[in-house]
Amino acid sequence: MRILLAQINPIVGDLKGNTRKILEGIARAQKASVDLIVFPECSITGYPMDDFLLQSSFILATEKHLEQIAAATKGLSLTAIVGLPRQNPFDQEKSLYNSAAVIQSGKILGFQDKMLLPTYDVFDERRYFEPGTEMKLWNIVNQKVAITICEDIWEHSEVLRYTSYHKDPILDLQKMHPDLIVNISASPYSFSKPTLRCSVCMNAAKAVSCPLVLCNQVGGNDSLIFDGYSVYVDGQGRVLAMARGFEEDFLLVDTKETQSEIVKMDEWQDLYRALVLGLRDYFRKSGFKKACLGLSGGIDSALVACIAAEALGKENVLGLALPSRFSSEGSVSDARKLAENLGISFKVISIEEPFKAYLELMTPHFEKKPFDVTEENMQARIRGMILMSISNKHGYIVLSPGNKSELALGYATLYGDMCGGLGVISDLTKGQVYTLARWINRHKEIIPQNTLDKPPSAELKPNQKDSDSLPDYAIVDNVLKGYVEEYLSPTEMANKWNYPLEMVTDLVNRIHRNEYKRRQSPPGLRVSEKAFTVGRRFPIVQRWQIKDK
Amino acid sequence: MRILLAQINPIVGDLKGNTRKILEGIARAQKASVDLIVFPECSITGYPMDDFLLQSSFILATEKHLEQIAAATKGLSLTAIVGLPRQNPFDQEKSLYNSAAVIQSGKILGFQDKMLLPTYDVFDERRYFEPGTEMKLWNIVNQKVAITICEDIWEHSEVLRYTSYHKDPILDLQKMHPDLIVNISASPYSFSKPTLRCSVCMNAAKAVSCPLVLCNQVGGNDSLIFDGYSVYVDGQGRVLAMARGFEEDFLLVDTKETQSEIVKMDEWQDLYRALVLGLRDYFRKSGFKKACLGLSGGIDSALVACIAAEALGKENVLGLALPSRFSSEGSVSDARKLAENLGISFKVISIEEPFKAYLELMTPHFEKKPFDVTEENMQARIRGMILMSISNKHGYIVLSPGNKSELALGYATLYGDMCGGLGVISDLTKGQVYTLARWINRHKEIIPQNTLDKPPSAELKPNQKDSDSLPDYAIVDNVLKGYVEEYLSPTEMANKWNYPLEMVTDLVNRIHRNEYKRRQSPPGLRVSEKAFTVGRRFPIVQRWQIKDK
Repeated sequence: MRILLAQINPIVGDLKGNTRKILEGIARAQKASVDLIVFPECSITGYPMDDFLLQSSFILATEKHLEQIAAATKGLSLTAIVGLPRQNPFDQEKSLYNSAAVIQSGKILGFQDKMLLPTYDVFDERRYFEPGTEMKLWNIVNQKVAITICEDIWEHSEVLRYTSYHKDPILDLQKMHPDLIVNISASPYSFSKPTLRCSVCMNAAKAVSCPLVLCNQVGGNDSLIFDGYSVYVDGQGRVLAMARGFEEDFLLVDTKETQSEIVKMDEWQDLYRALVLGLRDYFRKSGFKKACLGLSGGIDSALVACIAAEALGKENVLGLALPSRFSSEGSVSDARKLAENLGISFKVISIEEPFKAYLELMTPHFEKKPFDVTEENMQARIRGMILMSISNKHGYIVLSPGNKSELALGYATLYGDMCGGLGVISDLTKGQVYTLARWINRHKEIIPQNTLDKPPSAELKPNQKDSDSLPDYAIVDNVLKGYVEEYLSPTEMANKWNYPLEMVTDLVNRIHRNEYKRRQSPPGLRVSEKAFTVGRRFPIVQRWQIKDK
Repeated sequence: MRILLAQINPIVGDLKGNTRKILEGIARAQKASVDLIVFPECSITGYPMDDFLLQSSFILATEKHLEQIAAATKGLSLTAIVGLPRQNPFDQEKSLYNSAAVIQSGKILGFQDKMLLPTYDVFDERRYFEPGTEMKLWNIVNQKVAITICEDIWEHSEVLRYTSYHKDPILDLQKMHPDLIVNISASPYSFSKPTLRCSVCMNAAKAVSCPLVLCNQVGGNDSLIFDGYSVYVDGQGRVLAMARGFEEDFLLVDTKETQSEIVKMDEWQDLYRALVLGLRDYFRKSGFKKACLGLSGGIDSALVACIAAEALGKENVLGLALPSRFSSEGSVSDARKLAENLGISFKVISIEEPFKAYLELMTPHFEKKPFDVTEENMQARIRGMILMSISNKHGYIVLSPGNKSELALGYATLYGDMCGGLGVISDLTKGQVYTLARWINRHKEIIPQNTLDKPPSAELKPNQKDSDSLPDYAIVDNVLKGYVEEYLSPTEMANKWNYPLEMVTDLVNRIHRNEYKRRQSPPGLRVSEKAFTVGRRFPIVQRWQIKDK
């Protein structure tokens, strides 16, 4: 069988534009004389649809676009599999199915409904969908084809967290002896997830002794980044072909041929490309072109500038050095060097005058209390104000430079450096920031070496260092990963790394205490298994005493 | 049977404090010689627990506290029903149940698990819980008692939206002939919801021909406000007794007596009390005492100041008039009059000097572009900066004055008037703001009449009025309610109110375009069926063309 996997990048809610992409894919497939073309999960609507799914006019319009797609296959010899949310015809708890439509000769043959509905982390499918009840086989050029939707093949590999479905569609398929398993996915990226997804496909194919093709969505939709990497696995579980990551691609598979064409994956390159794609799509899909950001001479803003220059083009990025009386000598010079290396625009605006104006205005109201975090935040907020003025006047989106370690501990100023439309590296720990920065510098110095070498500092008071008020970032990052991603208790972490329990407990309590700041942070690109700005829900006001019983 | 409904106000995660409240309730019940004491849903943990439920140490600790509660009933003659999340002993999709523990004589007799799990709007119960499978009857002083948990009794009244369960526990109970139905709830307030909840109880009791007691949580937890109003309904569906709204209360019910003691509910008083409770608990439960806010002389900040003075005490509220060169004469005088009427502290700080400093600093970078929204936002952000400085230096929480109509349309400045720890009236339409303000003034002038009379204006440029760039608020509010709460399409709304379709479509698109601002707004108190900051999920980047097909 000749199959075209159409790894497209839809825009959420753009039914017309997404349908155009699907029709173009079908025309391309017809030209290539394929038997089957496969589109990703919910490709007419884009994924995730969120509460658009609760608007009946949205569902009606989606179904009309499906009819339009079906009509376009009239007279063609191929079958098309297209993902979409659809009305549940039965009176059940939820009024929708997450479905794959099977289309032949101008007609919708029927639907396969998603059986396993992820309702954890960033997924809320039970909020909208009723689970499908049975696996069906479809006759495509006299082959028995089974269709699965994303999660449906994951239970079998026992790699899921938070959930353990009582059904396993792969076990059903073992009894049904299909000739081919199709999986349509909208499976978001996280660090090293492409490799995991590949192994899930291999396990499923091996378990059913049958080849499997997976077609994944690609592109950034708000916080989620879909990596693509659609794949073809044979019945022995060997990967024979793979589409490109982080871009649209059409992968032609011929199940009669066996040549293998494997894309080599690199975790750090993937991370970089994920961030570039996430940033680029956030701008492109909302019609913005230009970004500005503050360049402090530090590592975080330097990394964000590199990603922005790659994603938007150097001509669309403006870096601003915004020095204060406390800025180090290197602050402006390192920022300027970075801007030169990247070829982006660069401005220096001192914050001294508004800082003086505020101090003069506010000091009478400070009741002679000493310089403290108030004046530190003031400087960060003046910078935020300047960036937002540039944004408002000239149509830039401000990029927020905070990393995950800082956001975890609240080492960031609300309405100051937390200003912005997008948190580009908000899901990277400080350790990952350094590693990725060095990866960017692997061939030549783009980020100034001095930026990499100097100890991290917010430079908001004389001789300030992050290490004045934070433990070593290696410790912070371990606790962050242990608590937020792995749900370890303080005692478990203290034992695991031989840390003082009190220090671990303090860090964990600090993570909770700063929930109010993160709640007002811009959306951030998700690249870990558990990001702060999406898929993690904790109350602001709470009194869970973090100590083991 | 003598029953005590213990309508308590737990703090999320405060297992120790909540357990103490439960133990005190049991002691009080014993003193009053009751047969049964009932606590709200998830009363050991407080509701909602969010992702604390994913931490196994949290669940273990909860179960230990249940054992402590059970032990305290040793030697007592009463039965206690206590709500908590508990480990699901079976290997199922989700590893928890939302349960009621039945406790007698120091022992846990068993559990009734919640059958219907709301997974819509602000509820995410399928994210954590497996549904219970059967209703049980419990022998309490030789009466057959059935236990239901919140949602379990709601399907029968057919008033739920978004969902239509295939089970109805009330139908099960019709066959089981209980002598009493107990419902433990954590049912959040929205406008006129207490009346609806009452009618749900009446329907359930009538359907089973059996008396029903409902014990509801009370108190504010972040955005959600629980109103209490626990209730006793007889087998003919008549309300015979009701606990107080918006405060802790213990309602003693004797099913052998019939005297009726009904609390009169008033929708506007309820709304006011809800906001007061939500604000008060946000502060109290997080250990803060003092609030500050900008007083513009306008209606929104005036209403917030009234609520804050009631909730925190006038001595804990600081109002700041922050006039600019564009402020009207009445701006400061109306603000001062309000502060005097309320007895709160009051300061005037002109923003002219920092505004000048910014204009001088930024004008060279504005490329001779004219005065526009940039300079307007600048003023709002200077005010935000001043409020945050006061907050940082003196430990106030800043209250954000934005209403729902403004937030809907983005008529608010991010990092400016949107600064703050809590959006007090962010779920009130402009129309509701006026009605509630007049309700506050019903006996005497607290909010200056001039504030009520003058046309709304942001006063950020000469002679500005909201009506310059917005349709009449009555129109905005209709479209807001129609689109956000009722999911009407633009055509449906245009027809319903005889509005131009283009205007309605513009407003709807404006609601979507401003999603990015609301994403960074402080949490807001939820008082409608669909609030912006909680329970409503829409993408920022999307292209759903809002026009009917």
